[in-house]
Amino acid sequence: METLAEILEFFHRGYVDYRPNLTIDCAIFGYHDGALQLLLVKNKIFTKWCLPGGYVRKDENLDQAAARITAERTGIENLFLKQFKTFGEPGRNSPQSVDVDQLFELTGIKAGDPGWLEGETASIGFYAITDIVNATPQADYFSSECRWFPVDKLPPLGFDHDEITREALFTMRMHLYHFPIGKNLLQQKFTLKEIKQFYEVMSGKQLNASNFPNKLISLGLIVKLDEKLKIGAHRSPAYYKFDEETYNKALAEGLVLA
Amino acid sequence: METLAEILEFFHRGYVDYRPNLTIDCAIFGYHDGALQLLLVKNKIFTKWCLPGGYVRKDENLDQAAARITAERTGIENLFLKQFKTFGEPGRNSPQSVDVDQLFELTGIKAGDPGWLEGETASIGFYAITDIVNATPQADYFSSECRWFPVDKLPPLGFDHDEITREALFTMRMHLYHFPIGKNLLQQKFTLKEIKQFYEVMSGKQLNASNFPNKLISLGLIVKLDEKLKIGAHRSPAYYKFDEETYNKALAEGLVLA
Repeated sequence: METLAEILEFFHRGYVDYRPNLTIDCAIFGYHDGALQLLLVKNKIFTKWCLPGGYVRKDENLDQAAARITAERTGIENLFLKQFKTFGEPGRNSPQSVDVDQLFELTGIKAGDPGWLEGETASIGFYAITDIVNATPQADYFSSECRWFPVDKLPPLGFDHDEITREALFTMRMHLYHFPIGKNLLQQKFTLKEIKQFYEVMSGKQLNASNFPNKLISLGLIVKLDEKLKIGAHRSPAYYKFDEETYNKALAEGLVLA
Repeated sequence: METLAEILEFFHRGYVDYRPNLTIDCAIFGYHDGALQLLLVKNKIFTKWCLPGGYVRKDENLDQAAARITAERTGIENLFLKQFKTFGEPGRNSPQSVDVDQLFELTGIKAGDPGWLEGETASIGFYAITDIVNATPQADYFSSECRWFPVDKLPPLGFDHDEITREALFTMRMHLYHFPIGKNLLQQKFTLKEIKQFYEVMSGKQLNASNFPNKLISLGLIVKLDEKLKIGAHRSPAYYKFDEETYNKALAEGLVLA
């Protein structure tokens, strides 16, 4: 919502197009150069950094809503967003993470204005992983800031977004063992050392020497190329690439790596 | 809701205590004697068998709601229910799975009566695994039937409950690799053959000779007892039991088996 008029329309008549009491929050992880980051937004009416989120329209399904909300808040399109958990603790959407005075001043809304935005709201968590170079955060009427933070150095988040982020990380790391990952994050060709390092960053821990790479090979998810990386006279590790067909099948059906 | 008065109160004024447009559906798997089953309910106003489900109260969180709904619909208490996915396709709660004529006749509700139950409803899926002997289905005003079906011989389900069941099975089977299971389903002591067979039933596939058992031993989740099962002169496999402390820690924190 870029203009005040859009925001007021949403506040007063949003119930026509949106489902009441149901939102989506997105934990968008960014991978680049061996580091894992998280995309956070902050605007004039938030008191803390938050995950990008928003309400679900009546005419869209949850996947579509997550894609739309992410695009509107952060400018990132075509993310592969995966639902992981819904959060519904009573009081989770209490207004302490909102700067109410600012909200009133910026919009002319007054305390006690009849609103459909009241009551307990459950939020459906989605996560996605992208290369951070793909992100071009965009501002709205409330002047969003939108910035990447290293996952191990996050600021305290608003609402229950600390918990949502923890659960997103937990599920993403469990999914490493059941869905292929890396196609748009690694170079087209890579060495076994590179893919092992990639899995170490994603899982947040040291892995056994060849755990993931060996399993990826044995399941046909990565295949050896004729080409080699030339480091020195006696060191020339082979390049590998993802096998498109096996990768997409595993993405759709799941598998067991470990 | 056991009486007509309770049902009418819910229909007309349920919005006071319940969150609108948010339900929970529970896939309760029953394990017994080497077979996996699913608990389904049917009543006079459903046209098909369904997962037990219901609305979420405003003063309870989602886990509490799932436990309450399961107890009310099926009589099963103290289930370890695990949330797995939320379903929100527009039209998923269309009335084609409800026998509207029966509803009107049984309740006196008329078409067009003002209702808070209209509009798109998202449903949060939970699953649980129990020994089927623990289930004592109970009836309500609409005369619920409540019965176990083998998971490989399910009838066509109402609403989008076929999809919810598929996703519940998929997630439960993924979780086999990340959470311990079996403490209230197996006998207190068991052989490696028995726990392998248990994992085969749960995962729905043949497993490598000693995949799960070996990993369970190496992680300290099961420990060998001095006692042995006496089958014959040269066959006396050792008994094992779960290690309480390791088991509970893994249940809380997750792990990687495979």
